[in-house]
Amino acid sequence: MKEIRGNVIVGQSGGPTAVINSSLVGVYKTAKDRGANIVYGMLHGIQGLLENRVVDLSGHIKSDLDIELLKRTPSSYLGSCRYKLPEIQEDQEIYKKIFKILDDMEIEYFFYIGGNDSMDTIKKLSDYSILNGSRIRFMGVPKTIDNDLAATDHTPGYGSAAKYIGSITKEVIRDGLVYDQQSVTMIEIMGRNAGWLTGAAALAKCEDCEGPDMIFLPEIPFNIEDFMKKVAKLHERKKSVVVAISEGIRVEDGRYVCELTDNVDYVDAFGHRQLTGAARFLAGRIARDTGCKTRAIEFSSLQRCASHMVSRVDITEAYQVGGAAVKAAFEGETGKMVILKRISDDPYICVTDIYDVHKIANIEKKVPREWINEEGDYVTEAFLSYIRPLIQAELTPIMADGLPRHLYCQDHRNE
Amino acid sequence: MKEIRGNVIVGQSGGPTAVINSSLVGVYKTAKDRGANIVYGMLHGIQGLLENRVVDLSGHIKSDLDIELLKRTPSSYLGSCRYKLPEIQEDQEIYKKIFKILDDMEIEYFFYIGGNDSMDTIKKLSDYSILNGSRIRFMGVPKTIDNDLAATDHTPGYGSAAKYIGSITKEVIRDGLVYDQQSVTMIEIMGRNAGWLTGAAALAKCEDCEGPDMIFLPEIPFNIEDFMKKVAKLHERKKSVVVAISEGIRVEDGRYVCELTDNVDYVDAFGHRQLTGAARFLAGRIARDTGCKTRAIEFSSLQRCASHMVSRVDITEAYQVGGAAVKAAFEGETGKMVILKRISDDPYICVTDIYDVHKIANIEKKVPREWINEEGDYVTEAFLSYIRPLIQAELTPIMADGLPRHLYCQDHRNE
Repeated sequence: MKEIRGNVIVGQSGGPTAVINSSLVGVYKTAKDRGANIVYGMLHGIQGLLENRVVDLSGHIKSDLDIELLKRTPSSYLGSCRYKLPEIQEDQEIYKKIFKILDDMEIEYFFYIGGNDSMDTIKKLSDYSILNGSRIRFMGVPKTIDNDLAATDHTPGYGSAAKYIGSITKEVIRDGLVYDQQSVTMIEIMGRNAGWLTGAAALAKCEDCEGPDMIFLPEIPFNIEDFMKKVAKLHERKKSVVVAISEGIRVEDGRYVCELTDNVDYVDAFGHRQLTGAARFLAGRIARDTGCKTRAIEFSSLQRCASHMVSRVDITEAYQVGGAAVKAAFEGETGKMVILKRISDDPYICVTDIYDVHKIANIEKKVPREWINEEGDYVTEAFLSYIRPLIQAELTPIMADGLPRHLYCQDHRNE
Repeated sequence: MKEIRGNVIVGQSGGPTAVINSSLVGVYKTAKDRGANIVYGMLHGIQGLLENRVVDLSGHIKSDLDIELLKRTPSSYLGSCRYKLPEIQEDQEIYKKIFKILDDMEIEYFFYIGGNDSMDTIKKLSDYSILNGSRIRFMGVPKTIDNDLAATDHTPGYGSAAKYIGSITKEVIRDGLVYDQQSVTMIEIMGRNAGWLTGAAALAKCEDCEGPDMIFLPEIPFNIEDFMKKVAKLHERKKSVVVAISEGIRVEDGRYVCELTDNVDYVDAFGHRQLTGAARFLAGRIARDTGCKTRAIEFSSLQRCASHMVSRVDITEAYQVGGAAVKAAFEGETGKMVILKRISDDPYICVTDIYDVHKIANIEKKVPREWINEEGDYVTEAFLSYIRPLIQAELTPIMADGLPRHLYCQDHRNE
């Protein structure tokens, strides 16, 4: 007989991934299967919770088909937020408000699916809970395409983004071969400080594709003059040159390459300039200096929302970390995040564990120097051995009338 | 018993599509099945032919698996060119050279897979052939993502590009809903003068997606002040606004919107500015004027090379037009292009026919005014009824080690 449990609440926070909803399903299904009473969802994370914007998920996930659709639905089904809680000692009012809301809903278990900043939320809420004798348990469920979370081997969301980047990099390289003329294609990939996503472009290198010619990660300072010389050298032996760069590459003095542009189009009313345009800047520089045909391609937000091309390994693990969080919380854990521990690369074996969220929050994991070649313009075979198992197998979209079908959230209105 | 025929040559020209190689397979297989002796492929179209860069396709397409891989390989397998033949009366030398090469190879049938400019090549070569008593027959095989060829109901390549645009527009719209704040996402879609591709963004509007809020085609002059007002009006009732524009939209005085930018990054050594950036320009304008969060997404060359998301209807028709061209040429036709004639929308029935290439070459078919709404900011239901049958069903990629596998052309080296 199932033990009867109290109520559960789950939220999604930070930037979305293509598989973040698979973790939502993992939390929901596991909680229900293990006897949870009501499983609530916060609309737009903690920000929505503060406005009492919550839904009963059983009204949303009503069938096995709903579950399959939700797994294939990109972006955060419940909506997301970027909301940073104050330090507990600075302002207790907001904590009192949150716990009042949770108590009124008779919540016993709180799950937050997110990255670094979201784990900071879990850390603070669980600390406050312990300090104030609350029974509510707080667990973090890892998620980020950036793969920059500490303690875990990798993060759900990364494998699918990497698979997408590898796949379309192959297509872009093939497209670059079409004309018999010198050209440079600059591909700009997400990742402000960590090059995990940009390095995934190296996956394109296989029997039927040369792969990109150079890959520049934000971990290594970028030298524009060296880069120009390397492109010229490549052009001595091949016509179509393809280079993958991270949006976050910086020159030696610390300025982002995308900040070197004269382009003032993209400055908002507060003077904020969006940090995109490094590929465009470098493509322009090559075109001006050499007359060579260039193009700049930004993979843009498609990297995090291409649910039509996800890794089955990733979507399965995303589900598993959701389930493992519920299991751990129901067994009494709090203030922890689920992590993935790799047992072996080949065969790929990976299990879940839990880890103190205090040692995870606000820490950014970068690509190790030894996984980047000495020249600083490619990733090594060790990097590829790490990433390859994460992109394996597919979860085919459910197509309706020629397009991938998603689960539509009625309560998550755009108004 | 198969009749024994002479030699065949086939080339690919102009911008690639995701299904152009399906037409190549259609020509090759049909020619072989109908008794062709050698089927040659020109590397980089007529430009490669002039340098005697040809291959025997039987050395490339060696198995049924090769055929299936080739159908799923993006970009022109044989390479492409943008090469315009002079008028016959202006310069006969180049024609003499081409026919000398073709005669030396004992070519009897010449197929060219391409768009407007390529049909101009077929027109001139067949005219020259007739004027000079050559027996060689010249047939055009239609191909362009732009869908701007006259006489044919639509062009192979368009359906897959439309399916890709519809699919990722859905994903981008979903991604735009993630934060609970006002935002504008500007999507820039290919199409200099014709809005066929941009209109395909409307496919995203279905049960599980609101679709884009506005769609601007190059057929209608674009008014920036009106546009700004419309965005403000949309923001009165919804937070996340998504707008699809063609790269080729122009203001009333004829200047491209992307030319209004101050951005001088992207000017090459000859002073040529690439005509991209309309979305970026408008996103910047909105951000500056309203302080609203904006982003610009260029679908870029992925529209023409996303072989991982093709329409089965399209890939089948691409094969069929290749086969129909061979059949017609073997029956004695020359100076014609294969066209698609739609018999009905529902059920979708479409057959091939042939049409005088003189009435096709150099003509650009635009979206009819009545398929754009009165306001000029969306396409009509008639447009959607036209396009929907073209995006139906899929051709799943053949995956190897987590990525789509393509057929690699050994002779089409990048050097």
